[in-house]
Amino acid sequence: MAVPEQTVPEQICGPAVPREGARRPLSVRDVRITGGPLARWQRTNREASIPLGLRQMERSGAVPNLRLAAGEAEGEFKGYRFQDSDLYKQLEAVAWEHARQPAPEYEEFVAESAALLARAQRPDGYLNSHYQVVKPGKIYAELEYSHEMYCAGHLFQAAVAGARAGTDGRLLDVARRFADHLVEVFLTGGDDGIDGHAEVETALVELYRLTGHRPYLELAGKLVDNRGKGLIKDSGMGMLYAQDHLPVREADTAVGHAVRQLYLEAGVVDLYLETGDESLLECSVRRWEDLVATKTSITGGHGSRHDGEAFGERYELPPDRAYNESCAAIASIHWNWRLLLATGHGRYADLIERTLYNAFAASTSADGVRFFYVNPLQRRSDLVEDAYLGRRREWFACACCPPNIMRLVSSLGHYLATAEPDGLAVHQYAEGRIVSGDVALRVETDYPWDGRIAVTVERAPGTEWSLRLRVPAWSASSSLTPGEDGYAVIRRAWKPGDTVELELDMTPRLVRAHRRVDALRGCAAVERGPLVYCFEQADQEAAVDDLALVPGAPLRVTPVDDLPGVGRTVLIQTDALAVTEPEGGLPYRTHHVATTTGVTATAIPYHQWDNRDGGPMRVWIPLA
Amino acid sequence: MAVPEQTVPEQICGPAVPREGARRPLSVRDVRITGGPLARWQRTNREASIPLGLRQMERSGAVPNLRLAAGEAEGEFKGYRFQDSDLYKQLEAVAWEHARQPAPEYEEFVAESAALLARAQRPDGYLNSHYQVVKPGKIYAELEYSHEMYCAGHLFQAAVAGARAGTDGRLLDVARRFADHLVEVFLTGGDDGIDGHAEVETALVELYRLTGHRPYLELAGKLVDNRGKGLIKDSGMGMLYAQDHLPVREADTAVGHAVRQLYLEAGVVDLYLETGDESLLECSVRRWEDLVATKTSITGGHGSRHDGEAFGERYELPPDRAYNESCAAIASIHWNWRLLLATGHGRYADLIERTLYNAFAASTSADGVRFFYVNPLQRRSDLVEDAYLGRRREWFACACCPPNIMRLVSSLGHYLATAEPDGLAVHQYAEGRIVSGDVALRVETDYPWDGRIAVTVERAPGTEWSLRLRVPAWSASSSLTPGEDGYAVIRRAWKPGDTVELELDMTPRLVRAHRRVDALRGCAAVERGPLVYCFEQADQEAAVDDLALVPGAPLRVTPVDDLPGVGRTVLIQTDALAVTEPEGGLPYRTHHVATTTGVTATAIPYHQWDNRDGGPMRVWIPLA
Repeated sequence: MAVPEQTVPEQICGPAVPREGARRPLSVRDVRITGGPLARWQRTNREASIPLGLRQMERSGAVPNLRLAAGEAEGEFKGYRFQDSDLYKQLEAVAWEHARQPAPEYEEFVAESAALLARAQRPDGYLNSHYQVVKPGKIYAELEYSHEMYCAGHLFQAAVAGARAGTDGRLLDVARRFADHLVEVFLTGGDDGIDGHAEVETALVELYRLTGHRPYLELAGKLVDNRGKGLIKDSGMGMLYAQDHLPVREADTAVGHAVRQLYLEAGVVDLYLETGDESLLECSVRRWEDLVATKTSITGGHGSRHDGEAFGERYELPPDRAYNESCAAIASIHWNWRLLLATGHGRYADLIERTLYNAFAASTSADGVRFFYVNPLQRRSDLVEDAYLGRRREWFACACCPPNIMRLVSSLGHYLATAEPDGLAVHQYAEGRIVSGDVALRVETDYPWDGRIAVTVERAPGTEWSLRLRVPAWSASSSLTPGEDGYAVIRRAWKPGDTVELELDMTPRLVRAHRRVDALRGCAAVERGPLVYCFEQADQEAAVDDLALVPGAPLRVTPVDDLPGVGRTVLIQTDALAVTEPEGGLPYRTHHVATTTGVTATAIPYHQWDNRDGGPMRVWIPLA
Repeated sequence: MAVPEQTVPEQICGPAVPREGARRPLSVRDVRITGGPLARWQRTNREASIPLGLRQMERSGAVPNLRLAAGEAEGEFKGYRFQDSDLYKQLEAVAWEHARQPAPEYEEFVAESAALLARAQRPDGYLNSHYQVVKPGKIYAELEYSHEMYCAGHLFQAAVAGARAGTDGRLLDVARRFADHLVEVFLTGGDDGIDGHAEVETALVELYRLTGHRPYLELAGKLVDNRGKGLIKDSGMGMLYAQDHLPVREADTAVGHAVRQLYLEAGVVDLYLETGDESLLECSVRRWEDLVATKTSITGGHGSRHDGEAFGERYELPPDRAYNESCAAIASIHWNWRLLLATGHGRYADLIERTLYNAFAASTSADGVRFFYVNPLQRRSDLVEDAYLGRRREWFACACCPPNIMRLVSSLGHYLATAEPDGLAVHQYAEGRIVSGDVALRVETDYPWDGRIAVTVERAPGTEWSLRLRVPAWSASSSLTPGEDGYAVIRRAWKPGDTVELELDMTPRLVRAHRRVDALRGCAAVERGPLVYCFEQADQEAAVDDLALVPGAPLRVTPVDDLPGVGRTVLIQTDALAVTEPEGGLPYRTHHVATTTGVTATAIPYHQWDNRDGGPMRVWIPLA
């Protein structure tokens, strides 16, 4: 049952579709999300975010730059050297959106973009508007910071998405011509360079998956093998920045630019999935374990430093200066999805859930037209230095995040379930319908606001098979008992109408950080279900920075249908103190005096913050 | 007595000598430091640091670049656009060193440098090897990041030092020609530009003080007035970076690049000292109060961010990522010295002391040949991302700090005492001799290891005058009672042989941070006298990161004559726990388990850290 072994991989419409393997992804067409926050994000994405993104393609220079490269316009190149990638990510978003629900209104944009890219592309297949227009003499000469292969990777992903979704086929021609050019130069041509910004590796594997053309896979392998051998220059940010300090199989810990490391990991696991090279999976899992234990925010965010957009040292997890770039959350979901496909272990699905509902979800405003680049866990009062990135913005000079967010939201359905050797696994819960081969399931739930999930079999082959339901590690108890891999397995000859209920423990949780996390000492955070909470000024009786939670005080849950600016939510309230200490003189003293007042502290889900007045916010609150 | 009113200011040999004012600095020749750490630093500076610095002038490109500018050599410009300033600071260090104790061995270096600079200087007075060699068409066209006036400022300070110390007089000719050129362009010529990196303002005031040439003072005033008006471009780092976001008199808080802000403040107070413009003093004091209360490390260090070498937001004071650039400590001492001259308030001398013995002193290794650029309050275990700046280094690609350190050490005597309208004030305590007019004092003390200071009058005019002795705010009690300004005043007709004893409270202190300093919650630090302590791995029975201090446990003081690698010190020991918590999985949990073992924790003065094995270090330790 489920996916037959002879499935042709390219017929599955979704990102990251291994050609073989025990676990098979489902098509975004076959996983429909009909209710809950994920459905709302998809609606807002289609109605507000993508139209905004399309307008920005012209304004930001992404499309005009290509007209310059095509020799069809005069003017100055606009933006960064990786400006093309914004268009590619936007095209990918549109493709998944079209697959999810046909979108004829995008047809013209996709067709015109594909045609323009074809005209801008050099006869030899090379395509990068920045280098063609601004630095034609420097092609492949500045790989340490050129982003040429990074941009190519996003082109390949957009083209694969377009092919799987059935949008304009010319994009795949453009992509393959560029990929063939990369193969000629970097695989068969003897150039041992790598791109300073990993991304093309995972994209080349996907292009191989779609086309079956092995040189793409071989090039991805060579690029991964060549990393950490000093084959490109230092971009000025150090060798760790681009993970070029150690060979991939030898590195024990994630370092440098977080997004680069995480895209690289996605490519490493992709290569494992296609080649079976265990050394690749081993090194990636080793880094995952270290990363999760010592360099991951409670929201699932990654990157503790603005400086170099980098991870930072082990246990360096400042809430205020957490970088947690939106793109890093996306790349982390990509990586964890591949680890889940490779291993079937629920810990990867757990981290996808945490990242999705917190670090990732916070990146977009409730109305879908403003975005965070940086997702800290605290906003101080009276921002001065941080004023620029302190609130969501419509767009950015470096706009890597918004179209990246859009492509993930459009393809969310892909990450909910997989066909398994013995049946079907549900990894993430949302109201909707899941079809896999001759199995169809209906999922009824008010998740994540409520912990009851009812899965009803609508169609089944009659033979015995297993339904695997993830029981999140955050749930202290549940109505179904999971195995060591985090999944409850129910095996039977399912009949239409059969229902399984899973009830998770939605009791709010007060959590504290490991004692080595210096920046969070003496503080606690509130979680409920998969949601991390935060204390935003708009909901408080006292200044957020004065709040101290009373240990042991009950956490009271209050559903709210429509909190102004925020929408539907569930508040958590608790007894707290407002503590003030006199200011003035050095803030270091042998004796401290403080004034305290009893107040109620109110928390909202972190992902809903910054939809009101832009006041201070804290995820981590001192304990009184 | 003391300094007669008719003193010609330029006869006082030292940096920052106002032409008028109640408080008069003393000559570095007249304040001799003979014992204690300050004397040792001066000896090491002369014997090890300065010789190293002189060698680096050739290696680093500073001198070779000027040969290119003079047309006397062929080759590539080496280093940063502000490379000239390294040489200027080195020349200033040599000048004060020569003033302190004649140094004929430097004569050739000074003479050759002055001659080379004169040959490199353009006929119109302009001098900057980078712009002359690399970008001759961009002179004054990139003021937002060119550092042209910044370099000029360091030239002026070197020339003033040379003139006061009596080294090669040609340097002053070069400086004046360049200053006259700046006056022509930026004062009388109508160019309203300012330098993105403040420094020339304080230097121009000094050049005015030496020469009496008012256009230098007027240009300094115009540059201060023009700041914050958007007259130069954004360097790409934002307007706050260069304090160009608000007019100087309107800004309430220190922002952006810390060294820039602090040099600017020195210039602002210098201008007040020469013009009496109260609005300048007021705004600088306002920012000082905010800075001290909310953006100052316990070591006196400034700058909480690597990103932009910036201050950060109020109460953002991370111990691990504290930037605390060595140059910022120096600039802070410059600023506080001027505030002390302007107001006579001991709080500025207190901060000078804290900065000098901690943030500044830590910048140099015990042997004087390695330097910190960044001075954090914590070094984690197993540094990966921070490996580069994690230990002191002999030199840096951007070597602003080492010669800056040397010029301050050579001129330390200048900051110990002032002639006052009614006598003499001693601000900092060190074994030595202080001469001011017809007064001579002998200071006997083992400070800062011991709190007893004996001041003996060796020479006195016979009339009644006041001896003012600073009683540091850290001293919980003392044998002399200070006034509100922090000074104990003893007025009498002093006779040779008269002695005053001041005894300060050297009981070790356990201090905690203001509750708004999130990064230090639940932690304590140890201080004794003016010294901040730290817990370095080499002295511990357990891992530094596992230590937790037992509240209320006694702090035991143990003098050590010669701790290997460190030298003379005073250890502080206390009862602690070694606490370990299992690692693995996300570091956020509802329940925590820990294993504890009783240990002794041992602290050494912070400024003596990193002279051994490079292991972890913490100033702030969790309380059990």
